[in-house]
Amino acid sequence: MSKATIAVIAAMSAGAGAAATAALYSMRSEKKAEVTTTTTTVVATKGPAVPVPVPASQVFSGNQTTTAPVPVPVPVPVPSPPAIPTTGSSPAAPVNPAGLFEYGFPGPIADLATRQALISSYDRRTKNPQWVVEHITPASLAVRDGDRKNSTFLEDPLIPEKFQAKLKDYFRSGYDRGHQVPAADCKWSQSAMDETFYLSNMCPQVGDGFNRDYWAHFEDFCRRLTTRYPSVRIVTGPLYLPKRDPADNKWYVKYEVIGNPPNVAVPTHFYKVIFAEESTAPGGKVALGAFVLPNAVIPNEKPLSDFEVPLEAVERAAGLEFASKLPVQRRKRLCAETSCSIVVKEYAERQKAFAKGK
Amino acid sequence: MSKATIAVIAAMSAGAGAAATAALYSMRSEKKAEVTTTTTTVVATKGPAVPVPVPASQVFSGNQTTTAPVPVPVPVPVPSPPAIPTTGSSPAAPVNPAGLFEYGFPGPIADLATRQALISSYDRRTKNPQWVVEHITPASLAVRDGDRKNSTFLEDPLIPEKFQAKLKDYFRSGYDRGHQVPAADCKWSQSAMDETFYLSNMCPQVGDGFNRDYWAHFEDFCRRLTTRYPSVRIVTGPLYLPKRDPADNKWYVKYEVIGNPPNVAVPTHFYKVIFAEESTAPGGKVALGAFVLPNAVIPNEKPLSDFEVPLEAVERAAGLEFASKLPVQRRKRLCAETSCSIVVKEYAERQKAFAKGK
Repeated sequence: MSKATIAVIAAMSAGAGAAATAALYSMRSEKKAEVTTTTTTVVATKGPAVPVPVPASQVFSGNQTTTAPVPVPVPVPVPSPPAIPTTGSSPAAPVNPAGLFEYGFPGPIADLATRQALISSYDRRTKNPQWVVEHITPASLAVRDGDRKNSTFLEDPLIPEKFQAKLKDYFRSGYDRGHQVPAADCKWSQSAMDETFYLSNMCPQVGDGFNRDYWAHFEDFCRRLTTRYPSVRIVTGPLYLPKRDPADNKWYVKYEVIGNPPNVAVPTHFYKVIFAEESTAPGGKVALGAFVLPNAVIPNEKPLSDFEVPLEAVERAAGLEFASKLPVQRRKRLCAETSCSIVVKEYAERQKAFAKGK
Repeated sequence: MSKATIAVIAAMSAGAGAAATAALYSMRSEKKAEVTTTTTTVVATKGPAVPVPVPASQVFSGNQTTTAPVPVPVPVPVPSPPAIPTTGSSPAAPVNPAGLFEYGFPGPIADLATRQALISSYDRRTKNPQWVVEHITPASLAVRDGDRKNSTFLEDPLIPEKFQAKLKDYFRSGYDRGHQVPAADCKWSQSAMDETFYLSNMCPQVGDGFNRDYWAHFEDFCRRLTTRYPSVRIVTGPLYLPKRDPADNKWYVKYEVIGNPPNVAVPTHFYKVIFAEESTAPGGKVALGAFVLPNAVIPNEKPLSDFEVPLEAVERAAGLEFASKLPVQRRKRLCAETSCSIVVKEYAERQKAFAKGK
């Protein structure tokens, strides 16, 4: 992947100014360069990463489609927990740095929360989720037992009080409490939907023109994928991307922190990594798509494909890895398989619902 | 702790302007309020935090001093690894969000590195350490086998390549590769000192007036604590604190990102949490001090005690916890036990050494 990609993503803005357009075009040409040759990094548990060059044809190969049988949950291997040192020095050393852990391990602790319809990982520093993962299927979306007007926003009691995002932090902040896993994806159960209202599933999002508009249409795009794929997994989360300051030509990350005292970071961008599974049987092909959208007003006319980015760009920016165990042979490129575009429908209807619920 | 403390710390600046001075005074009065009554948060593994009010007299009690015997490494209990969900839904749920982990667990992974003289935890998003812990004793500082002129700065191969801070990111950035565990604390072995030169032990620091001056004097203060305490543990790391913009009265975090493309965050502040152990036997009293310094020129005349902050303020800002297993009965307040002040000595000498080494 071109080294410039992340910088280009960082420069992304929803504005229609010439600079932004140039940045987007430049990103898109980076993307094309990306497709011609790519690199998969194989991470050893305790050793350096070994970059393995992979021909692009193996990354997104094939064009097979399947019909959608009733989905079956896939058994999940338990990821290895991170190793924590017990002694920090050789017997000959005059010091023992690991002795500190007698007073407690500093962390970071990600406050993983496993709920019916989502799993979230929380960042105690930014008081935002790091990622939230969900699973939708034609069957799960067909059931309509939950209604968001019965749900209320909640502080997450699984997070220690001093690291919690608070309802009062959002109050009069000017930002929506923006669902990362959308409530509308969890209508199959009122209690599952209620659980999407924990603040550990929220980020401060620009309301009009983003959370209530383009972002909502993007969420709708994800749901519509279930008409083609029997099982769709989506990881969503915030990013804090640098932007070049023309005054000194340096790159700066700048984001607001809401609350009094300031507590919850306002992300500059949001990502979604989409895994559209062609089959619910183990080992099937997976259409992968990664998107980064600015936390800003985006005109509905903007093509969704403008926001497609290489997966590795999201990984570098987020400090996370999303598909380290997914062999390249099983990967396809979502936007080569299906049209990556939003449908602006039921606009007035949606506005009305949002006005009630937000 | 007063809710305003973190905001006030955030406003801290090394500048001598009236606003900064006001912020520091206000922080200091916050600190006094803090001492009169404080709260310890007991964190349950899977439940909500239970705030337990603790009288201030129990937090920093006693005034006992000890002489310094030869230190003995303390046996370290293994901290519990974080729980990672294996299935994300009840049997009745139509979805299984945990199925995503089949493709790999997203992280975050902290890249703990255990070296002879330090243990570091790395932030793959900011490409800085989260914390670095060291241990110094009168005996360890007495041995002088290592010399920094034999050491070279190194990219850390324990970190996957795509998340590494790189030497080229720092090159011509205008910032020092600022040791978090100082090389000078590890003279007891050349190889131990060499290991402090991994970039996983570095943050971009302002050179003149900070890393080569006030910060160096602060490191010297830590070493001098070993004349009174037989064992001193220090946790050091970066912070990214918000500052109020007078233009719109909102709080913003703003930091530079160095490298081309931008890769390594430039922290706005640095913390040290100091555990000065009165005894090397288990269960002894510990003099605790927490400090937050801006990554900026600080005049040598500025009292070190101006930068003392409540431990909880560092914890909230860093999203970490440093003393969750240290009972309040064992805690004393470092700056009540000893004079928290820098000594500006061997200035020309130090400058010469830095000019060579940095």
